[in-house]
Order: sequence, then C-alpha cells, then structure tokens
Amino acid sequence: MPYRRTPKVEARLAETRERIIKAALKLVARGGYAAANIPAIAAEVDISAGLIYRYFATKADLFNEVFKRAAQTEIDACAAAFDTEGTVRERLARVVETFARRALRGRKLAWALLAEPVDPPIDVARMQFREPYRAIFARLVQQGIEAGEIAPQHPHLVGTAIVGAIAETLVGPLSAPHPDEEDVDLVASLVAFCVQSLGPQPTAANPSRRRRHE
Amino acid sequence: MPYRRTPKVEARLAETRERIIKAALKLVARGGYAAANIPAIAAEVDISAGLIYRYFATKADLFNEVFKRAAQTEIDACAAAFDTEGTVRERLARVVETFARRALRGRKLAWALLAEPVDPPIDVARMQFREPYRAIFARLVQQGIEAGEIAPQHPHLVGTAIVGAIAETLVGPLSAPHPDEEDVDLVASLVAFCVQSLGPQPTAANPSRRRRHE
Repeated sequence: MPYRRTPKVEARLAETRERIIKAALKLVARGGYAAANIPAIAAEVDISAGLIYRYFATKADLFNEVFKRAAQTEIDACAAAFDTEGTVRERLARVVETFARRALRGRKLAWALLAEPVDPPIDVARMQFREPYRAIFARLVQQGIEAGEIAPQHPHLVGTAIVGAIAETLVGPLSAPHPDEEDVDLVASLVAFCVQSLGPQPTAANPSRRRRHE
Repeated sequence: MPYRRTPKVEARLAETRERIIKAALKLVARGGYAAANIPAIAAEVDISAGLIYRYFATKADLFNEVFKRAAQTEIDACAAAFDTEGTVRERLARVVETFARRALRGRKLAWALLAEPVDPPIDVARMQFREPYRAIFARLVQQGIEAGEIAPQHPHLVGTAIVGAIAETLVGPLSAPHPDEEDVDLVASLVAFCVQSLGPQPTAANPSRRRRHE
C-alpha cells in the first residue's frame, strides 16, 4: 500500500491488535479454545467481529499468535527450572514439576495448548510449541551423559518420549472441569516416572551401555 | 419408519455400507485423513457423494467407524504380543516393538490414527482409541509389581505415560513421506526407553520403594 500511516495511527492499530490477543488469551484461559470464538473476542474488546479480520486474516493467524504467547510463558518457566543447580535428575524433576503444576493451575489454557480438539490449521501450528520442551529435556539427557550421571542414550528420542509421557498423563486430568485432590499425587508420580525413565546411574561395573546410535 | 425392508434389501444396504468403510480405509492408508474426503470415497465406491450421507449422517460418523476398525486391528496385534510368555520387561518390549513396527510399515494410517490434524468431532472420537493401549501397559505394570519384577508404582499412570512416549516419538518419523533408514534404530531406542521407564528390578536390599498412592 502506498498510503503512509502516521506514527499515531500505527500506535493505535498496534494497541487494538494487542487488546484482541489479550482478550482471546483471557477467553481461552477461562473456557478453552471452544469458548474463544470470534464474536466472543469481539464483544470482549468491544469492537465488531468483522474488524478482527482486519488485524488477523484468519482465525488460525490469531490463534497462532495467542498460543505462541501462552506457550512462551510456560517455556520460560521451564527454562528457569532447567537453569538451576543440581544433578540432572534433580533438575529434570524440577522442570517436570514446574510444567505439571502450572498446567494443573491454569488447566483450561493448558488443555487448549496440549490437547483440546481444534481446527486442523491451528493444530498444525500448535504442534510446534512442543519443540522447546523436547529441546530442554534433550539437553538435560545430554548433560547427564556427559557428566556420567546417566548411561549413554539417545538425547532427542528420550526428550521427545518424556514430552509425550507428560502430555498424555496430564490430558485426562486437565479435561476434568475442576482440580482434583489427586493432582498432588499425580505430579509426584509423573516426576518419579520421568526421573526413572532416564535409567539407573552407571556404575563402575557397568560404566557404559552404549547403543549403536551413540 | 413403519416401512419394512426385505432381507435382500437389508443385505444390499449392509454391503454398500461396508464398501464405503473399506474405500475410506484404503484412502486413509494411502494418503491419510486429508486424502479421504467424501467425493474421493464416493468415486472409489462408484456411488454419488450424496448417497454416502444416507449411510452415515455425518463425516464424523463415517470416520469414527473407519478409525475404530483400523485401531482394532492394531490393538489385536498388540494384545497378541501381550499374551506371550516371558518376563514383564520382555513382554513390554514385544508390545512396543509390535506397535512401532506396524506403525512404521503402515505409516499413513498410523499417522492418521495418532496425530494427523483432523476436524474436532473426529479428534474427540480418535482420543478414545488410546485407552486399550493404556490398559495393556497398565496390566503389564500390575503383573510386574505382583511378580516382584518391578518396584511398586502407579500402573495406570505408567501405562498412560508409555502410550504418550510411544505416540510422541513416532509422530515425527510418521509425518515423513517415506520410511527412513533410521527407523530400525528408532524402534530399538523406543523399546529400550519403555523398558527402562519401568525402573530397576527390586533387589533384596531395596525390595520396595513404595509410594503414597500404592
């Protein structure tokens, strides 16, 4: 477009765009993706539904941004748990516990990010948000192998498997409308499973159980 | 409807219904859910697209049946691996290997069953097909605890976590269009992860690491 916007107009457009994203985030956190339809978001921002499409060409574009924001907050929390002192098993336990506790606290948002049935184009985008978690777990595995704390194994595969284990375990509880008394036990059991899945500490008698792919 | 169908008409209707399901299954196996649209299925059966809706009220109804059939074949194969002789670790390894090998061989169908973005009502139905696998793994864990082969742990949670680990690990490779040379290594690493995730065999010195929920 040859037409040039003034800085003031630009700022107002950016501000409305931000309000749309925040309103969508709020609705997802309250009722999941299903509750965050365009008319509801428009009502929340107090603009017309049609106007939203001037800021986001498709619903998928809007939710790609909404889920990206929501996911980044969670990833930052897990990255902080990764950046702590301790053995690899201790740090892994902290990351898993951080993820699970936050998910169970913000259950509707976590459900929407992890498993709620969404339209196919949004599902495609949502799958990408698992990659940073895989990377965190793969690095922990790599560091554990290098430090001799865990036996040689395939860091990327183990990282992926742990992400799958966490997601699958939380999906059921998160789809329940309210927190459960068993949530505390669930977090402890999930942390125990993930730590256990790294296998035993290599001993002097059995220092390296190398596999072909290492 | 007060109108009564003759046995001959009933048989013909059942036969056409079956041909529709088989055609949809064939298309999913060849190109995933995305390739199995109603016009393509109608062309395969050589009937009009409109006629399909006389047999299945919605696309979700048809695919619920298609995915149920496909899933049952896979579940039967895993149940056969479960029903073998050996330790719980050996049998778990057989079930995981059976599932992974079959998935990598019938990759489009497996991708459609596990993770391909599908319309929300179909996604809801698809989630149920994971339950029989959870049950198989949970029973293996329970049997392992009872036989003293693995330490006390939460069978349902571990079963769920293993299903998640397998699904997440296979999603990437399955979304690739062709088999990869690394598939063999992938299966071996995945089996090793799942067996390892059960933890060490309880020793006389450390016979039971009981947790609160046991």
